[in-house]
Amino acid sequence: MDGKILIVDDVATNRILLKVRLHAAHYCPMQAATGAEALRLLRSESFDLVLLDLILPDLTGIDVLRRLRADPATANLPVIVLTATSRPEDRLAALAAGADDVFAKPTDTQLLLSRIRNLLRDRQKLSDLCDSGDTALLGLSEAAAGFESPGVIGLIASRPEAALHLRHALQPHCSDRLLTLTPDQAIGDGMAPPVPADIFLIDGAPPLADGGRALMSDLLSRTATRQAGVCLLAQAALPARDAAMAFDLGASDVLHAEHPPRELALRLRAAMRRKRYTDRLLLSLQDGLRHAVFDPVTGLHNRRYALARLQALLRQPGPLAVIMADLDMFKSVNDRFGHAAGDHVLTEVGRRLSAHLGQSDVLARFGGEEFLILLPEEDMTRAQATAETLCRALAETPIPLPGGQGALTVTASFGLACRDALPAPGTNSVAISGETLLAEADCALMQAKAQGRNTVRADTRRRA
Amino acid sequence: MDGKILIVDDVATNRILLKVRLHAAHYCPMQAATGAEALRLLRSESFDLVLLDLILPDLTGIDVLRRLRADPATANLPVIVLTATSRPEDRLAALAAGADDVFAKPTDTQLLLSRIRNLLRDRQKLSDLCDSGDTALLGLSEAAAGFESPGVIGLIASRPEAALHLRHALQPHCSDRLLTLTPDQAIGDGMAPPVPADIFLIDGAPPLADGGRALMSDLLSRTATRQAGVCLLAQAALPARDAAMAFDLGASDVLHAEHPPRELALRLRAAMRRKRYTDRLLLSLQDGLRHAVFDPVTGLHNRRYALARLQALLRQPGPLAVIMADLDMFKSVNDRFGHAAGDHVLTEVGRRLSAHLGQSDVLARFGGEEFLILLPEEDMTRAQATAETLCRALAETPIPLPGGQGALTVTASFGLACRDALPAPGTNSVAISGETLLAEADCALMQAKAQGRNTVRADTRRRA
Repeated sequence: MDGKILIVDDVATNRILLKVRLHAAHYCPMQAATGAEALRLLRSESFDLVLLDLILPDLTGIDVLRRLRADPATANLPVIVLTATSRPEDRLAALAAGADDVFAKPTDTQLLLSRIRNLLRDRQKLSDLCDSGDTALLGLSEAAAGFESPGVIGLIASRPEAALHLRHALQPHCSDRLLTLTPDQAIGDGMAPPVPADIFLIDGAPPLADGGRALMSDLLSRTATRQAGVCLLAQAALPARDAAMAFDLGASDVLHAEHPPRELALRLRAAMRRKRYTDRLLLSLQDGLRHAVFDPVTGLHNRRYALARLQALLRQPGPLAVIMADLDMFKSVNDRFGHAAGDHVLTEVGRRLSAHLGQSDVLARFGGEEFLILLPEEDMTRAQATAETLCRALAETPIPLPGGQGALTVTASFGLACRDALPAPGTNSVAISGETLLAEADCALMQAKAQGRNTVRADTRRRA
Repeated sequence: MDGKILIVDDVATNRILLKVRLHAAHYCPMQAATGAEALRLLRSESFDLVLLDLILPDLTGIDVLRRLRADPATANLPVIVLTATSRPEDRLAALAAGADDVFAKPTDTQLLLSRIRNLLRDRQKLSDLCDSGDTALLGLSEAAAGFESPGVIGLIASRPEAALHLRHALQPHCSDRLLTLTPDQAIGDGMAPPVPADIFLIDGAPPLADGGRALMSDLLSRTATRQAGVCLLAQAALPARDAAMAFDLGASDVLHAEHPPRELALRLRAAMRRKRYTDRLLLSLQDGLRHAVFDPVTGLHNRRYALARLQALLRQPGPLAVIMADLDMFKSVNDRFGHAAGDHVLTEVGRRLSAHLGQSDVLARFGGEEFLILLPEEDMTRAQATAETLCRALAETPIPLPGGQGALTVTASFGLACRDALPAPGTNSVAISGETLLAEADCALMQAKAQGRNTVRADTRRRA
């Protein structure tokens, strides 16, 4: 279910009004009239966003917000607080308790809807990747918020004194590191990486074009900065239409220079909280992807990665050598010393092979005790020399076993196949497939096994 | 290197002018004066985008574009064609050859920059996930464009007759399926999934607010539609500032009603091509994530997934039972019948266990011949009954071996541990950790092994 929004308000007409507006915008609103009912619903169902009134008959909205933030299941749920007053102390209290934004009633519908889609989009842009929506799939359960260390906030202004003024005002209310930057410094010079800020605050005062919106779009499109949250600072309250546009452009918040510095700091803090949530999501996704290409025992790349790299390397024009290596009589290691010792041997073999390979070479654990090595730009002669080196590197020095079980001499047999450099474009030639190359290396490996092991054999069919 | 842009133009002053503008915007421009030089650079270096003039001294820009699209390495590279004329036939030829956009010279700098960041952002939003930037890591090399089957284009207009008129005009030039939709139908009613269009074209004519930009932002924020490309159709050429804003909001293209229908169709085709590129990227990312949580041999979830789910389930208040199952004397299966037969047995065991478990239960291959089962909401009595059922399901019927090797009776030993329902909130209680629960189940499993195998034992320490 998409866009499930909980409306918490004690006044029935308020709830109905919001419900009608959300329904017309094709969201799926539900209602709670008391704090207790809201907390009960939040525990039993899953929502995408909460619209929370501050005045409730039982608890205060602030209490509801605090409890919701203390529960790991709802700690990162977007909450927009709606207040009947526009008193600064209400806004401050709501932001301090963890609100993502505070709107005074009556709210502008277009602005509220743009803020809702802004917060939903922010939250969901990475979760698209879990097709089942099952976040445990990402080990995300592990990625709950821990200790919140200070972050880096980049204060961007065209005039350096404006950025310094901002820093001076925010400093007493911020535990984050505050950097002052010109627009050029924030974007970076294209060569050196720009300052790795978690949040940027753009002072939209002239001469900056467009109230800073173009600069914000620029930051959100650059590799080095697009994971940052970008907040705009307007000199006065923006027309609802302009603020809505800023949210649709991806602003993490729209701040007003007339707000007290403490409110600015609290809004930056909320932006920082959201940024860290998406950071954690991104990290666990990357971690998941790493697990998909690495072998957990040896830390080497796995078969899946090696096959994808082989396909990619075959598209390049240079020569390519493939070595298939299989440990000799490895089953007896597991049988005599146990699986832990066997895993230790595999890891040490991987370490030794890797020590004799270059940066552009690929080394993978291909199966149980089988390793695949891809040598771009190596022809048969050079690849044979490399394989001989690897063979000696294993056989020469015994591998110490864990737990004082002594040391063991481990050898491997090596089978080698090679694809020559591709002929010049335009020449008719049949491309050799990865499957063929692997089969040839496997065949050479079997010859090495048959001829006494601990040796290298090359596939010679195409050289005949 | 971020934002590496190749400028291809035979006139030195044009190149220098563009270079200065790109450099001022913190991109990293390079230059080519001929088609041959451009193709050579594109083969030897990696670019993020190309600005291509149509008139070159050797090849035509169209030739360069066709060759670039025919090479898998550059087939999806964004290309903006710059023409000295604004003749419709030049635009059509460039779009037909695979240009992402065509700008007449002199180009508005703000508009060109917003289109550049729009195309860069579109391309890179998913590649952030590969922290090394190594796309082979994703098996992406496999995901090269194949046969381009027709897609679905949703034509959205407030007045149904306007959408029908659009469909009538586009039909002769489009091989994609064209649907006519009202804005409400495109967003969906919140319950039923909306039409799964690949591309939406929004007719921005009144009464639609904001030239369709708000509706576009809405579509780009909804789970069901945010993977689609959204194009805006303006009634007349937009001011550069408005078109730039549309690109920064994420428009896949901005079309003009005054363009010939064939140009509209070609621009929609280019949007479709970009959409399919990100689709393939998304699919290979999801595939990578699946590999991170599934065991390739049995198709069951793996240890990593099971441990994450265990942590998540321990945070829920109900009881939780954990069963550790280990096949009895499994090594002899591999030794006698080979690894292929062993894998077949593991797969069949997984199938049988899974047939007796519910949807909310978790079954994972935990190690070599070890399976972990998590039973949410089951107490010791019920979990014991479940384990007995699983034990019988294995022992009762022999497993047929592949290759006519007969059938084999395979049994397993089961160790069981349980966490009771959590006491009411507020009560002081010590939470049991996942490690403890697993160790208890493991201990019970060892008892089952010691007591003759093919049996179930429960951890009884905390019940004493």
